[in-house]
Amino acid sequence: MQEQSDETMKTILTGDRPTGPLHLGHYVGSLKNRVELQESCKQFIMIADAQALTDHAREPEKVRENVLQVALDYLAVGIDPEKSTILIQSLIPELFELTAYYLNLITWNRLKHNPTVKAEIQQKGFGESVPAGFMVYPVSQAADITGFKADLVPVGEDQLPMIEQTNEIVRHFNTAYKQEVLVRAEALLPKMARLPGTDGGMKMSKTLGNCIYLLDPPKIAHKKIMKMVSDPNHTDIEKPGQVEGNPVFIYLDTFASDLDKVQELKDHYQRGGLGDGTLKKYLSEEVLLPFLEPIQKRREEFAKDPAQVMEILKKGTEKARETTSKTLAEVRSAMGINYF
Amino acid sequence: MQEQSDETMKTILTGDRPTGPLHLGHYVGSLKNRVELQESCKQFIMIADAQALTDHAREPEKVRENVLQVALDYLAVGIDPEKSTILIQSLIPELFELTAYYLNLITWNRLKHNPTVKAEIQQKGFGESVPAGFMVYPVSQAADITGFKADLVPVGEDQLPMIEQTNEIVRHFNTAYKQEVLVRAEALLPKMARLPGTDGGMKMSKTLGNCIYLLDPPKIAHKKIMKMVSDPNHTDIEKPGQVEGNPVFIYLDTFASDLDKVQELKDHYQRGGLGDGTLKKYLSEEVLLPFLEPIQKRREEFAKDPAQVMEILKKGTEKARETTSKTLAEVRSAMGINYF
Repeated sequence: MQEQSDETMKTILTGDRPTGPLHLGHYVGSLKNRVELQESCKQFIMIADAQALTDHAREPEKVRENVLQVALDYLAVGIDPEKSTILIQSLIPELFELTAYYLNLITWNRLKHNPTVKAEIQQKGFGESVPAGFMVYPVSQAADITGFKADLVPVGEDQLPMIEQTNEIVRHFNTAYKQEVLVRAEALLPKMARLPGTDGGMKMSKTLGNCIYLLDPPKIAHKKIMKMVSDPNHTDIEKPGQVEGNPVFIYLDTFASDLDKVQELKDHYQRGGLGDGTLKKYLSEEVLLPFLEPIQKRREEFAKDPAQVMEILKKGTEKARETTSKTLAEVRSAMGINYF
Repeated sequence: MQEQSDETMKTILTGDRPTGPLHLGHYVGSLKNRVELQESCKQFIMIADAQALTDHAREPEKVRENVLQVALDYLAVGIDPEKSTILIQSLIPELFELTAYYLNLITWNRLKHNPTVKAEIQQKGFGESVPAGFMVYPVSQAADITGFKADLVPVGEDQLPMIEQTNEIVRHFNTAYKQEVLVRAEALLPKMARLPGTDGGMKMSKTLGNCIYLLDPPKIAHKKIMKMVSDPNHTDIEKPGQVEGNPVFIYLDTFASDLDKVQELKDHYQRGGLGDGTLKKYLSEEVLLPFLEPIQKRREEFAKDPAQVMEILKKGTEKARETTSKTLAEVRSAMGINYF
């Protein structure tokens, strides 16, 4: 029965570069969805260490350490290794080989003009010294997606060119080798808007230092929340404050379960008389700390036995290879280089 | 004892792209040396199918067919699978993975400026549509060389930048990961000058159509020899002809064993009275056909049982992986991504 339903299930590939612990932005943008999607989809969650190395080649220890940390975050938020397959990218050799074959199907020029990569090169300030591995990572991403025959890939708007490039490679491959071996992927765009940083900026991001991490101890998380940007013009408690676009209310809308209470706070804030300190104290003590507590408890439990977590990754990686080795065999057969 | 001597033996990596049968130019430039070197070195001979695919991605059947043909040529000239390890490149997954890590250690710009690749792009007339895989093939070549920890790599002068780029990657890697894992390679330049084509051009090359193939039947080989370019100014038999730079004499110097006879022919030719037809007939009937005969006999023997030849390649590939998997384990350990 299980197998039969597997056939009709959509396959999802998702994951993270292990370059730091995950934060509330990750939770809202992806982790929460993964916990839901694992019930209805065949989900592969990739700890993308090889991809992280494309721009951290000279600090692999950072990547190495964060493999475990990211896995702990996954397990803590409720990703269930029985339902989702968690894997380590660099331990799937098929992905490197697929990358090599796909590199032959697209031009050097096309790689140069990938808009996502162009934007990232600017962001990262590579200048003239972009690592070659970084330039080709969209092709490695196409190998990831097609290696797992993913139908759906959760991405942000800014990552859409990556899916496009993947599908371009799918088309080139199936045309060149006259077989429908590779599967077109579809982007799964987020339902929710991005969670702003504690500084009110568009995006939570480690480099901007505006994150609340899933593993932040209550004291630290509380401090960060109390320092959050609210309505910058709300300098007098008695005066009305603005709710729309106010990061504190966005967090409340995102995480609070008592919607009546949130409405009451909004009304009060707009009327005047509700101070930002009181508001943030509510967000911290009644909403975010209680949200983080069970996550951190589960994290601590798993962290007591890192060997067990690594074992989960090992098993997931082995299971993942069942799929990728099947894909590679089909790819080699389509290319006619299945010698034995 | 065998093992102990293995330790002190130099390791050689060499090979061919399987895009066509091998010719006399290959014999003089590399095959002959390999037969000698297999006595004193640990020699890996790679059928570089993955590399051939970098510019033959859309005609993989050509690559596929020639894997067996090249292997037959190897066995025919006396490469002994007990002494040399013959392997199929695409079946060594470690090489793809090493390529991925090395790509992170060199810049996109550096790749662009590789003189060998630049010259080849022009030759092949790629224009703006160079496949990305072709641009990165020097890095994949570095993976081949370092994956086998080759000390010596037989190359032509024009390939020296490739060895340079490999050693640059070796230096980057050992510096970045603070371990002397990778081994510097040295170019082994040919002792003999290049064999000219039958048209008198610098180089025998399939695309120029000036080759005598190892598998050319006697009639065809004879015809090609009789049509060879000699001294173009030697239009009158009775007049003296030029020996120096004369392709027919270069072939004689390269392949004839009766040196006195060759000297006699040279004297006669320079004196006048020796016709080119007579000279070429000697080259064909007394030198090249007898040279090719035992090679073709051995080739026919092996060709009777292609499954056996493929078995030799399978075994060689398995043996080769013992070395590359050891290298990859060391590489991953140096990078600290040896998780389990």
